[in-house]
Amino acid sequence: MNNRIAVVPGSFDPPTLGHIDVIRRAAALYDELHVLVVHNPGKEAMLPIAQRLSLLEQSIAEENVDGNVIVASWSMGLLVDYATDVDAGVLVKGIRSQVDVAYETPMAIVNRHLAQIETVFLLPDPAHALVSSSLVRQVAALGGDVSPFVPGPVARFLDTGARGL
Amino acid sequence: MNNRIAVVPGSFDPPTLGHIDVIRRAAALYDELHVLVVHNPGKEAMLPIAQRLSLLEQSIAEENVDGNVIVASWSMGLLVDYATDVDAGVLVKGIRSQVDVAYETPMAIVNRHLAQIETVFLLPDPAHALVSSSLVRQVAALGGDVSPFVPGPVARFLDTGARGL
Amino acid sequence: MNNRIAVVPGSFDPPTLGHIDVIRRAAALYDELHVLVVHNPGKEAMLPIAQRLSLLEQSIAEENVDGNVIVASWSMGLLVDYATDVDAGVLVKGIRSQVDVAYETPMAIVNRHLAQIETVFLLPDPAHALVSSSLVRQVAALGGDVSPFVPGPVARFLDTGARGL
Amino acid sequence: MNNRIAVVPGSFDPPTLGHIDVIRRAAALYDELHVLVVHNPGKEAMLPIAQRLSLLEQSIAEENVDGNVIVASWSMGLLVDYATDVDAGVLVKGIRSQVDVAYETPMAIVNRHLAQIETVFLLPDPAHALVSSSLVRQVAALGGDVSPFVPGPVARFLDTGARGL
Amino acid sequence: MNNRIAVVPGSFDPPTLGHIDVIRRAAALYDELHVLVVHNPGKEAMLPIAQRLSLLEQSIAEENVDGNVIVASWSMGLLVDYATDVDAGVLVKGIRSQVDVAYETPMAIVNRHLAQIETVFLLPDPAHALVSSSLVRQVAALGGDVSPFVPGPVARFLDTGARGL
Amino acid sequence: MNNRIAVVPGSFDPPTLGHIDVIRRAAALYDELHVLVVHNPGKEAMLPIAQRLSLLEQSIAEENVDGNVIVASWSMGLLVDYATDVDAGVLVKGIRSQVDVAYETPMAIVNRHLAQIETVFLLPDPAHALVSSSLVRQVAALGGDVSPFVPGPVARFLDTGARGL
Repeated sequence: MNNRIAVVPGSFDPPTLGHIDVIRRAAALYDELHVLVVHNPGKEAMLPIAQRLSLLEQSIAEENVDGNVIVASWSMGLLVDYATDVDAGVLVKGIRSQVDVAYETPMAIVNRHLAQIETVFLLPDPAHALVSSSLVRQVAALGGDVSPFVPGPVARFLDTGARGL
Repeated sequence: MNNRIAVVPGSFDPPTLGHIDVIRRAAALYDELHVLVVHNPGKEAMLPIAQRLSLLEQSIAEENVDGNVIVASWSMGLLVDYATDVDAGVLVKGIRSQVDVAYETPMAIVNRHLAQIETVFLLPDPAHALVSSSLVRQVAALGGDVSPFVPGPVARFLDTGARGL
Repeated sequence: MNNRIAVVPGSFDPPTLGHIDVIRRAAALYDELHVLVVHNPGKEAMLPIAQRLSLLEQSIAEENVDGNVIVASWSMGLLVDYATDVDAGVLVKGIRSQVDVAYETPMAIVNRHLAQIETVFLLPDPAHALVSSSLVRQVAALGGDVSPFVPGPVARFLDTGARGL
Repeated sequence: MNNRIAVVPGSFDPPTLGHIDVIRRAAALYDELHVLVVHNPGKEAMLPIAQRLSLLEQSIAEENVDGNVIVASWSMGLLVDYATDVDAGVLVKGIRSQVDVAYETPMAIVNRHLAQIETVFLLPDPAHALVSSSLVRQVAALGGDVSPFVPGPVARFLDTGARGL
Repeated sequence: MNNRIAVVPGSFDPPTLGHIDVIRRAAALYDELHVLVVHNPGKEAMLPIAQRLSLLEQSIAEENVDGNVIVASWSMGLLVDYATDVDAGVLVKGIRSQVDVAYETPMAIVNRHLAQIETVFLLPDPAHALVSSSLVRQVAALGGDVSPFVPGPVARFLDTGARGL
Repeated sequence: MNNRIAVVPGSFDPPTLGHIDVIRRAAALYDELHVLVVHNPGKEAMLPIAQRLSLLEQSIAEENVDGNVIVASWSMGLLVDYATDVDAGVLVKGIRSQVDVAYETPMAIVNRHLAQIETVFLLPDPAHALVSSSLVRQVAALGGDVSPFVPGPVARFLDTGARGL
């Protein structure tokens, strides 16, 4: 495996400013960065995966993240199978809080066992760190303004799309 | 907005002694306190909202909380819309544990962005702090005695009501 | 109640090496140890209770845990009702992380109120502590190798059984 | 006691942008706000108390905090004695993290017992929340630029004062 | 080693109601309970060890803890050496918060390696759980009333003794 | 700065198996890894810095860590000054627990401000993660066997050296 290639997995339902911040930082640390939309069968999604891919691509372009980012999705198996396919040696996770760390630690240990892949935790900018996709979904569902928490393309989409224009 | 008017939001499904303790403390800190039963569409409720309102009112009366408390419900939009309607400048949340703080912090930041409203965290009496509505529901469902954890009206209701008398 | 008799409750869906480690330590601390498969109506299970009982019994035998262990299940009421029936004075819970402690503390306080029963927390071996049944289920569902995290009988069952052989 | 009068206690050694942010928010919530420099005999200080008072006053002026703020110091007894003297009914503490909450909770419970005074926790702006006075002292001692973390008067003082100009 | 004999180690400088509560619960769980005052060379103590022993003995008597409690001190070596000397198979620690657990976990793992001794964590009554000896010392040093947090003998001693009567 | 060059800072007083595990993982992720013994003026050290450097070098050799590791010390200024000198773009910290993360997060944010350097958090092997240098020092000072927690050269040194050969 190549430790210059990394994967940032997530649901990105929708992408937040915290996600884009972590992606930007990870893109500066690795030669090739895969932003991977992972299907979580246990959670009901707000957005279809194709929409999340499109919003991620638009957001990454609009926010001027480095050009070494590949956006993809994965719903057929283990996250480490994707990482192995693209020869990535590193998983990157942004951590918003201590509770995040408690949640991510066991998965990192499992992925290490499954594929000798290392997980590195990165800190988002504290100004963008706290607000999760789940909270954005709740606020958007009630008609609140989520533009302080998400990139422009997501804000514009939720404003028109979610309201059925 | 008036910083002498505060809102204590919650599911109150059912109200616990911890809730009543926080309500009593908040009632002493503000001129007008709204105890707001918030409908959470993502959670299946044990009690209908009308029942929760009734139990809150009975409990507040029986526990001799100050007279400046208004019990209401809200299911039409953002919590901050209610707060704005009643001109409240403060949200009050009781915190039972560090995990509670981790959960409440992002919502407080979002509400600050949405409506310039400040959230203050209050500590319940440690003797009543730990037991949540969710745990009361589990114990009651299995026929356990919840009277050490809930106010009298809730204990009497769950004893007779929940068992279908 | 007899403080030489203890109960280790859990979902054990499936049993993990962390579970077996806690059971082994608890078996050395008490004269009689009940490993109790508790039905959780709020969670959808992977394995039927009979299967979990069988896997626990095989795993306890294969891992040479002391002979004072009784495996049973309970789905009719409160955990403390079982404890009272077998005259147990102690509940034992393994704690993997601080989040576990935050989750278990209120239940321990409730059980103390319900039946004057004390909960003691034990630390699993850190090498086995982190991985939960829930994570094992996720990995197994995606075809990953869970053998580093579960006892032999569970690994063999998931390899053949879960894949429908 | 008057619940319109609040005290924000701290070491303020030196004041940080997080402190000023909490002071600004508290000043908006109460009619009279006492910012109290508390002498902690167990900690060796970087700045004498008179210097901390001066820096607080300059910072509050320069950052345009509301005019209802009184800066004072206290080294003769319990914090609640000061609060009682000025008839304050509320203590305000900014919380940067869950560890802060764990540290502040027992003190809040003690102060409630000592003087029936309530402690409310406020969240600083996440962009300024994390960096403590202690970390500012470490960075300044090694010659690092602390201006992103402290108000202008503190940055100017540490740049000239701490280096003995 | 005998798993019916347990040791509750601590600084007990001074004993608190939380300590007495844990001692009472542990005394009910084991046949013989050693309450061990451990000298911590890294901390400056308020009370000499002989005073702590005396206050513990008086408090245990006054609070009617079971008769199977032995109070002793240890300053010559590892805690597990004492445990081995008295043939104890269990260490008991009360846990006040998640931070306590994070602090105690590594020591428990070390003691397990050093002497195959198991540490069990017990929950104090939440009403008495939060206030530490360290906080009692701070309050007492400033002349505050610590009687809600400590057993009678400690309250009486600190009221007269610490003030030089 | 070069994101293929990383620095693992620490006190390493003494190095533990957890340290060596993090160094091994980081050595596999970067082209050049600096293990930097940082002098902490606020802590009294057990071992002089030269001794720590020697033990690190022996341990890294004996444990067969990759050959791209440079051991150095730094006591003249900010950690980021060293990183800038060697053109490192990444700081690596092992995290043992959620409390570690809470402690390291503010320093990582400060270092990002001071020198646009990113901190990545790595998980040690859980089997070695918990025991800190501080705990090793305590156990060694009391004559306990620290060999399960430290690399061979440290165990041999503490056994003969600390006991005066």
